[in-house]
Amino acid sequence: MEKKRPFDCGVTRSMEVIGGKWKINILWAISRGEPIRFNQLKRAVQGITNVMLTRSLKELIAYNLVKKKDFNTIPPHVEYSLTEKGASLVPILRTLDQWGKKNL
Amino acid sequence: MEKKRPFDCGVTRSMEVIGGKWKINILWAISRGEPIRFNQLKRAVQGITNVMLTRSLKELIAYNLVKKKDFNTIPPHVEYSLTEKGASLVPILRTLDQWGKKNL
Repeated sequence: MEKKRPFDCGVTRSMEVIGGKWKINILWAISRGEPIRFNQLKRAVQGITNVMLTRSLKELIAYNLVKKKDFNTIPPHVEYSLTEKGASLVPILRTLDQWGKKNL
Repeated sequence: MEKKRPFDCGVTRSMEVIGGKWKINILWAISRGEPIRFNQLKRAVQGITNVMLTRSLKELIAYNLVKKKDFNTIPPHVEYSLTEKGASLVPILRTLDQWGKKNL
């Protein structure tokens, strides 16, 4: 999944990983309630579909920003939380939250 | 263009305005070379098409993050730069740039 590209722009690289419509919202929702289950996360991220949440989580896990814990039970019990790398984004997301509340 | 929605989450509001694939990259490129012309901006934002750059700029202007100056000349001379509100995002984009360089 890691696609090495010879450019120096950290913003471009970051947006390759957390860009798009949902990933920043998902990371923020996990950071505010981890560990969190799929349906809790779906409720926390307004307007996301099951398909988009599943796909976005898969990418965030592949980029080592989110980790998944499967309890191997019936019915299934799966929890999501941030990895250390994912948690290192939270201060940036917090400033984005403050910016949004102040400016929009 | 301002769509008021009764939620308190600053991140959700921010992503409504600067979410998607290109807007954060565009804001960052403008911040590093403003005032900047359309073709310069196109070169600075890797992989963006004319259509996506035009559409994204239109939205960023509508959200009062970017301003456009048309010199009314033939051939046309148009420059883009950040508004005060747009410029207030730059510290967040800078931390995102550092995060990307460090973690990806």
